[in-house]
Amino acid sequence: MTKSQPLLSLLLFIFISGTISQSIIQLSREHDVYCNSWRFSVETNNVGYWDLVPSRCVSYVQDYMTGDGYRSDSEVAASYALGFAKTVEIAGDGKDAWVFDVDETLLSNLPYYAVHGFGSEPFDELSFDEWVDLAEAPALHASLNLYKELKQLGFTVFMLTGRSEHQRNATAKNLQLEGYSDWERLILRESSDQGKPATLYKSQRRLELVNEGYRIHGNSGDQWSDLFGFAVSVRSFKLPNPLYYIP
Amino acid sequence: MTKSQPLLSLLLFIFISGTISQSIIQLSREHDVYCNSWRFSVETNNVGYWDLVPSRCVSYVQDYMTGDGYRSDSEVAASYALGFAKTVEIAGDGKDAWVFDVDETLLSNLPYYAVHGFGSEPFDELSFDEWVDLAEAPALHASLNLYKELKQLGFTVFMLTGRSEHQRNATAKNLQLEGYSDWERLILRESSDQGKPATLYKSQRRLELVNEGYRIHGNSGDQWSDLFGFAVSVRSFKLPNPLYYIP
Repeated sequence: MTKSQPLLSLLLFIFISGTISQSIIQLSREHDVYCNSWRFSVETNNVGYWDLVPSRCVSYVQDYMTGDGYRSDSEVAASYALGFAKTVEIAGDGKDAWVFDVDETLLSNLPYYAVHGFGSEPFDELSFDEWVDLAEAPALHASLNLYKELKQLGFTVFMLTGRSEHQRNATAKNLQLEGYSDWERLILRESSDQGKPATLYKSQRRLELVNEGYRIHGNSGDQWSDLFGFAVSVRSFKLPNPLYYIP
Repeated sequence: MTKSQPLLSLLLFIFISGTISQSIIQLSREHDVYCNSWRFSVETNNVGYWDLVPSRCVSYVQDYMTGDGYRSDSEVAASYALGFAKTVEIAGDGKDAWVFDVDETLLSNLPYYAVHGFGSEPFDELSFDEWVDLAEAPALHASLNLYKELKQLGFTVFMLTGRSEHQRNATAKNLQLEGYSDWERLILRESSDQGKPATLYKSQRRLELVNEGYRIHGNSGDQWSDLFGFAVSVRSFKLPNPLYYIP
């Protein structure tokens, strides 16, 4: 054994571990570029129906949801909603309306999804309903601020959610605990709405509002099925949601 | 003068320049977070009408357009379009159609915008028309690949552009030079279309296609005004564009 062998081994070790960590960084960067683009296609509805977050993007989604990205995207969306709201002339007859979705719009289920794989696990209705019954979902701060500003401006606020009628008490309690108040109506799925695509159910309920004489100026939701269809609002505001898709 | 003064000055200099570069990095990170969110709200149409890229986001937009982001977003969008296209049963009567926009969809005007401030300068029709007449806009690679695949699958392809009839020759020449061929029809604004919002003009032209018996399965465009309105396609594919907005 020559004297130079340990040094050679050390250099070889440094070289190999350097190459490996370089490869890991490179792979992680490629994943980020891809997952950013996946999120672009999710948020613009290019993807259409999707089931689970792609496995290579789960940690990306976790970072996005728990870091600055989600908070900032929500805030900037709310700021454009408020900017538009301020241009609306409020007639004073109580008919100038704004529609909010609930889940991932007024309330955040991030604490639930944080212990259920950030969108990587199939939806489990039983455990999600238990979570809803706790009435512990925190407010999305950007939406709570927007909500208060809209009330101040004189808008009549409707909440239109895919949650079911039997979840009314837990939902109302949760909303109140988180600082929401003075909404006009909280609209939930009745038994006759079960099985309807969200776009149809929500459009039908908006049409009822329009037929009651409400002018729906704005609509905030995290799903395109909150915003598309008929009896749509003048302006729609898409909140981010890379966790799940509702048709 | 004591001996320690030069050392003290050096340490102070290192401290101050360190603090300054820290602040610059921090500010640049905050800009990136904001500009990412601005782009989210642009691409989901939360912003609605907008005129110029916000000055704090111009270098962000430049990096996005010339780096991996724009290429990757376009590729992933095209991959979802192709995935959908493969599920369409082609009847063989030539009536299964796909509609493409031209600018920032089939052709890229990035070389033009690179020398015109990446969306930070007001639109200058004169210089843009000169650029169009050159017929030198490169293909968006993701769209060219999608186009070829769609032709292969048996789709009838229409191009529906906001460019004017007098730009037909330059546009057709540019498309051919870049590898596009065998389209069914290139539809441009006629004099009677001038001044119409793009959503209306494009919807009317799609309706004409529907009335001719075409089944519009897919529609690819970088503006929501390419995709919204009436006679819409079964599935729409929104390509990225943080450079400009067309109502």
